[in-house]
Amino acid sequence: MNFDQSQALFRRAAAVIPGGIYGHTTPAATVPGAVPYFAAEGFGCRYRDVDGNVFIDFMGGYGPLVLGYHHPEVEAAAHAARQLGAAFNHPTPLLVELAEKLTQRIDFADWAVFAKNGADLTNWSIMVAREVTGRPKILKIRGAYHGTAAWCTPGHGGLIPSDRVDIADFPFNDITALEALFAQHRGQVAGLILTPFHHPAFADSVLPTPEFVAACNRLCREHGALQILDDVRCGFRLTADGSHSLYGYKPDLAIYCKALANGHPISACVGRASHKAAASRVFLTGSYWSDPAPMAAALATLDIIAREQIPQRLALLGQRFVDGFLALGKKHGVDLIASGPPAMPYLRVKDDPSFMRTQALCTAIVAQGVFIHPHHNWFISAAMTEADIDEALRRIGIAFDSLPTTPHFAS
Amino acid sequence: MNFDQSQALFRRAAAVIPGGIYGHTTPAATVPGAVPYFAAEGFGCRYRDVDGNVFIDFMGGYGPLVLGYHHPEVEAAAHAARQLGAAFNHPTPLLVELAEKLTQRIDFADWAVFAKNGADLTNWSIMVAREVTGRPKILKIRGAYHGTAAWCTPGHGGLIPSDRVDIADFPFNDITALEALFAQHRGQVAGLILTPFHHPAFADSVLPTPEFVAACNRLCREHGALQILDDVRCGFRLTADGSHSLYGYKPDLAIYCKALANGHPISACVGRASHKAAASRVFLTGSYWSDPAPMAAALATLDIIAREQIPQRLALLGQRFVDGFLALGKKHGVDLIASGPPAMPYLRVKDDPSFMRTQALCTAIVAQGVFIHPHHNWFISAAMTEADIDEALRRIGIAFDSLPTTPHFAS
Repeated sequence: MNFDQSQALFRRAAAVIPGGIYGHTTPAATVPGAVPYFAAEGFGCRYRDVDGNVFIDFMGGYGPLVLGYHHPEVEAAAHAARQLGAAFNHPTPLLVELAEKLTQRIDFADWAVFAKNGADLTNWSIMVAREVTGRPKILKIRGAYHGTAAWCTPGHGGLIPSDRVDIADFPFNDITALEALFAQHRGQVAGLILTPFHHPAFADSVLPTPEFVAACNRLCREHGALQILDDVRCGFRLTADGSHSLYGYKPDLAIYCKALANGHPISACVGRASHKAAASRVFLTGSYWSDPAPMAAALATLDIIAREQIPQRLALLGQRFVDGFLALGKKHGVDLIASGPPAMPYLRVKDDPSFMRTQALCTAIVAQGVFIHPHHNWFISAAMTEADIDEALRRIGIAFDSLPTTPHFAS
Repeated sequence: MNFDQSQALFRRAAAVIPGGIYGHTTPAATVPGAVPYFAAEGFGCRYRDVDGNVFIDFMGGYGPLVLGYHHPEVEAAAHAARQLGAAFNHPTPLLVELAEKLTQRIDFADWAVFAKNGADLTNWSIMVAREVTGRPKILKIRGAYHGTAAWCTPGHGGLIPSDRVDIADFPFNDITALEALFAQHRGQVAGLILTPFHHPAFADSVLPTPEFVAACNRLCREHGALQILDDVRCGFRLTADGSHSLYGYKPDLAIYCKALANGHPISACVGRASHKAAASRVFLTGSYWSDPAPMAAALATLDIIAREQIPQRLALLGQRFVDGFLALGKKHGVDLIASGPPAMPYLRVKDDPSFMRTQALCTAIVAQGVFIHPHHNWFISAAMTEADIDEALRRIGIAFDSLPTTPHFAS
């Protein structure tokens, strides 16, 4: 497997783009030189890069492609809507249908709004919490990703002190720290924003303890703060009705994006009737937001997710993958740590603080045509069959065989 | 003309969406009850609403549809790219082609990045200015629109004092005020952000004086601050190579969006080589940004804009429209004020501080099947012919005839 075309394109890109490729698709986030840099075509749960290499895709565009590339029903719905037009002066009836669909589907949701990026609505949600409460402070999980706005970006560039004077963070699952922040900022906390489970990059995923979920619910209620669930990455992958229902959160606002429309650009925020008037006072708009095609894609995707019990399917396929991957590690004498729900698993080599051995393993796996990421959780696709999982595992077995020595293959 | 279906849909919307319809497409921004609320289908420079009313469209989705609905060459390019896939793990080669196209087209541009919303990149641009300079302060034009982020939203809801401690504003074209701000914040100004001309809602457009442009160029250079041109609304409508070239600005960063891809969701920021390393340090990413279809649409749109001299065409059509509209006002004894470049004109009734007479005139015009906005600049479409302009003027003449009395028709 070679990446000559990828690397030639990257040299062209580097001449006209800061960093060559920016954001979550930058090769620097994976293992430079060991992965493709440019995609050519996707089909089902596989894609081909610009050098003609084909991969079984365990990243799915970092989440959006829950049903795989080119799902026929989703694409037909989007295509039909696109024939109507785009970027109208007004919304189309699909706006109403999609808001009705989400409010029927999600138990606590009385209303919905739509944007393009998940971050459009995480940013808006903290303004809604401030408008509802008349308070400034936002509590967030340390290391959680909510977008690249100055109040929350994981980057370091371009920040100034005033960006975060009203943001306070604490470790996931740490009830004592959360209680301390509510006490420290008594009467000043507008909202708590968190992801359903903790899925940082460069670290294991962490599921919430029932006690932590209960504490979030109780403390927000006691202190009159809004609970904001950033379900951008997980939403509609773990359940068909929002991830709060799996873990027991009682959110006031929830934000969805990645799996909402199988890759078509749309995000959603839903909320409770008691906050609807305040939400209407926080101005929200964007150039392309009346575009009907992503709304049609979302309606189709939501139907398929419920009708075909996609979350259950992802969980079963994911469990098969994780079990098989762990067994291969055991067979080859490599201790592995698996974390996160099986539908969005993450595996790494144990006792590997530098990620060097995890990177070496991932590099060997990518070289066998299975695209996984060494530092970011993976995404099972509903376009996968058990045979695809087994084929991926077969190739991962070859990758283990190819490692120079085990268990210290990258030492 | 009735809006029964629009109003029925709006009642459904109001049950499940804060405000029913939010953002710039809200009926509350125009004249409630006098305009359609929901679109059904667009074709060329016309669209049909859900009640079957057809309008000659002078808003173009508030800017994106520079070539009209369903431009065949743009749609074919987008469709071909969409067949490759969406939301990949990597960009496609179209990312490189588009960055190369913009850096070749725009004289000062050495690099480009792409996002979805214009605001994704106005927000990013001020972070880049802060990263380049190590300073916090941003100067902006009072009343200018750069998006709905807390630092700049025209809304009032959800704001807290810390949002704008490092933002200072001043009136457009006011050199003395700009000099005073640079003096007051000496050594603290990271950047000046402004639109090429001033196009606020609920006010006349204002073209920049040559002296103001020269002062912006000089003061940014003298004080080591970045000049950021928010060309989201104007870019590629007034010239084929960015609006700075028309007025003489020397920007360091410029942001494009609306006309960039004829309605397909993409925005761009371009900049100079001297700021490229700093730009690469300001993290920028979004779920759907590797999607190739909007990049293909942008490449096609940029080609057509240059090849068919679209800005010249829009200027000629716009001048014909403005001249004809003013002549109709004169004929009917209604003093009108026209402002803005003819490609993006705005007309209102003179001596009408409450906008009541302007609203009444617009309502009468919309009732004749010509969609214009009483409080926001309009957009000429390249899909219009001289015959479409003349047909619109004929209908506007009927609208003037229909007004109860002139010149005090709405008194």
